[in-house]
Amino acid sequence: MSKIRKISGFPEWLPEERIVEEQIINTIRSVYNSHGFTSIETPAVELLSNLTNQGVIDKEIYALKRAGGTDDSEAEFGLHFDLTVPFARYVAQHFSELQFPFRRQTLQKVWRGDRPQKGRFREFYQYDIDILVRDQLPIACDAEIITVIDKAYRKLNIAPHKIRINNRKLLMGFYESLGLNEDLQKKAVIAVDKLDKIGTAGVAAELNNCGILGASSEKILKLAETRLTKANFEKGISDLGVSNDLFKLGIEETAALLKLISSEAASVVEIDLSLARGLAYYTGTILEVLLPDHPEFGSAGGGGRYENLTSNFMKESLPAVGASIGITRLVDLVLTKKLIPLKQKCPTTLLVTVLNEEQRVVCNGIADKLRDIDISTEVFYKSPKLGKQIDYASSKGIPYVLFIQDNGVLQVKNLETKNQIEHKSVDTIIEFFKGN
Amino acid sequence: MSKIRKISGFPEWLPEERIVEEQIINTIRSVYNSHGFTSIETPAVELLSNLTNQGVIDKEIYALKRAGGTDDSEAEFGLHFDLTVPFARYVAQHFSELQFPFRRQTLQKVWRGDRPQKGRFREFYQYDIDILVRDQLPIACDAEIITVIDKAYRKLNIAPHKIRINNRKLLMGFYESLGLNEDLQKKAVIAVDKLDKIGTAGVAAELNNCGILGASSEKILKLAETRLTKANFEKGISDLGVSNDLFKLGIEETAALLKLISSEAASVVEIDLSLARGLAYYTGTILEVLLPDHPEFGSAGGGGRYENLTSNFMKESLPAVGASIGITRLVDLVLTKKLIPLKQKCPTTLLVTVLNEEQRVVCNGIADKLRDIDISTEVFYKSPKLGKQIDYASSKGIPYVLFIQDNGVLQVKNLETKNQIEHKSVDTIIEFFKGN
Repeated sequence: MSKIRKISGFPEWLPEERIVEEQIINTIRSVYNSHGFTSIETPAVELLSNLTNQGVIDKEIYALKRAGGTDDSEAEFGLHFDLTVPFARYVAQHFSELQFPFRRQTLQKVWRGDRPQKGRFREFYQYDIDILVRDQLPIACDAEIITVIDKAYRKLNIAPHKIRINNRKLLMGFYESLGLNEDLQKKAVIAVDKLDKIGTAGVAAELNNCGILGASSEKILKLAETRLTKANFEKGISDLGVSNDLFKLGIEETAALLKLISSEAASVVEIDLSLARGLAYYTGTILEVLLPDHPEFGSAGGGGRYENLTSNFMKESLPAVGASIGITRLVDLVLTKKLIPLKQKCPTTLLVTVLNEEQRVVCNGIADKLRDIDISTEVFYKSPKLGKQIDYASSKGIPYVLFIQDNGVLQVKNLETKNQIEHKSVDTIIEFFKGN
Repeated sequence: MSKIRKISGFPEWLPEERIVEEQIINTIRSVYNSHGFTSIETPAVELLSNLTNQGVIDKEIYALKRAGGTDDSEAEFGLHFDLTVPFARYVAQHFSELQFPFRRQTLQKVWRGDRPQKGRFREFYQYDIDILVRDQLPIACDAEIITVIDKAYRKLNIAPHKIRINNRKLLMGFYESLGLNEDLQKKAVIAVDKLDKIGTAGVAAELNNCGILGASSEKILKLAETRLTKANFEKGISDLGVSNDLFKLGIEETAALLKLISSEAASVVEIDLSLARGLAYYTGTILEVLLPDHPEFGSAGGGGRYENLTSNFMKESLPAVGASIGITRLVDLVLTKKLIPLKQKCPTTLLVTVLNEEQRVVCNGIADKLRDIDISTEVFYKSPKLGKQIDYASSKGIPYVLFIQDNGVLQVKNLETKNQIEHKSVDTIIEFFKGN
């Protein structure tokens, strides 16, 4: 007998949990579709050389090899660890066949050989959108990404959300004004990014280790405490008294962004000058979604603007702005905290019971008529006592059962309300469901 | 600069091709859903020990290893090569949490380190359905699987289809009547399965190699030529004059099956006594879909009944019947033969053009109202001359563009018919689309 054991970090949902996952995916998809983002997929596999040295520790990348035999020609392939590197490669590879702006959505699994721990997965779904252009990328695109992510969380309706935004140019411009060179600016970004995890003292210590001391360190930490809203952004940011070109450009971009995001998004946006989004090569806007009711959850999605997304794969360096929602983590949260109730264990709306095998062909005919009007219908696979068949429907959360009375009348019973209605023919059942 | 090269056997579609793939998937999903098959997914990864010795050559299995470092603890994982082995493991693992009959649908990628050649993929989507029970599996379930697969191909409407069916019990019973032992019966199945590829002479040679000679060999080949329909099955099969229990059971099951499949399915079903479906551990009904207009394509889907699906993973041996459609191969056929025309390169129905940046917020508002009624709408990312924006819409196959005239009137132009309608407000545009 073969072994069965849960492989840690590789989640697997029960049917009723998978229905919640599908509901979350479909909700996000409907928002992405409504803005015309076109679906693309790439293979799970990329050339290993394109995956290494891309901001993820190489040890976390899964490479392939053949299970049997010594042929190691697949050793050059690895499973992708995000959807951004494959996207850049896709655009470069199919460049002449694409139309720009290229607006994509991608829902795919990614793999990371992370140390397994609660809320960390080694295989998980991400759902990304990006807008990529061949020319200058207007701030309107950054605004659309934020608006869409806001709409997605609004429509998901699982918990109130906030969107933290920042602009790398504000951070870099500020650090520049302190006289830090580019290398130190980057180090400061990395240190500040850890604020939530290691606190002010931790960040100060890290800055200290980089040789950023005294007034500079204090000012960096002060900046990181700054929180502004659309209403007080322009005053708050000019109060910082920084006037170099980079910082001014950051102000300009952020002000334009705040004007162009939807009013709904604006109502949950906070300009958070501690937001750094780690090592990624963002060059302007950065964003992160939080669920304030679930602070331990951390980022519920994030993204930003890359000025040079494709530079690793082609001479032309194309700018893009995008965001990603970590579906698997989100589903895990929703299931753990019961934010969406588990209901059905299958998509079936109605079970046609079969009281004897002679009825089966008639039952199939009734079921097909209901399926024609998009009522998911199952015919019970054998013909035990009615009670057993109703128990089956209850156990799966199927809301309606139908049975044929001796006199040919069709009974439709709502298992929740116990309400039972007699129908002379399928036609009135169809009317009943159409009216619902 | 990183390398870009097509990785042979790992397909990647352009946006307009991906739309065709999604259309095919959605069509099949709607049929599977209508019969209440519940969606489950398993990780891409299984314990390697559960994948080897499962009917696929071990060399074709991709195992994982870490790209960096020497830690080889992932060497025990492999990518699944089908959706049946993981399904059996899933049922065994979650047995106490599932309700039976368990009716599942699974759309997932599988990986096989096959030699790359036309129409052979190393990463591909399969879309499976199965019905699995804890007790006896009635023929009604086999009939439902065939009915559903027939409906799927009917709704796909890409080419006329046929469904070949057979029953392993008919084959084994017949071979038994020739005095072949169980081992030789299996060898005969494997030989006959190659009929399409190596022809009658080839099969005869192979039977000869197994020591099946003369009259036996001739009778096996004669049986393989037998083709029956629902109308002439009972006469045709009894004319073969075989009377052992296994063969009689095969007749009984097939006759019951033919009574229970939908009349539409019956009209395309052929009982084909050469159908063997290779090595897989089928025990009764077997089926295969063909597209007669595309004979070189081979199987457009297939499946059958396993009496012991889970026996590798649990003591209780649960019977199941199911079928699988090879989505990636089918999409490849549809694209190569242009069976579905390529149309749009994005889901967008309408492009709101922006004549100057002052209009943008108004344009966003118009777009949002259309999105609210499920009209996928894009607002152009900058504001060049109208012609350029219309060219963009045309290049992506977006059917409608909207622009705001100086007098505030909204013009909606159908780019295909060149028909242009003036609207005083978004409300009449909404009415227009609702009427469409």
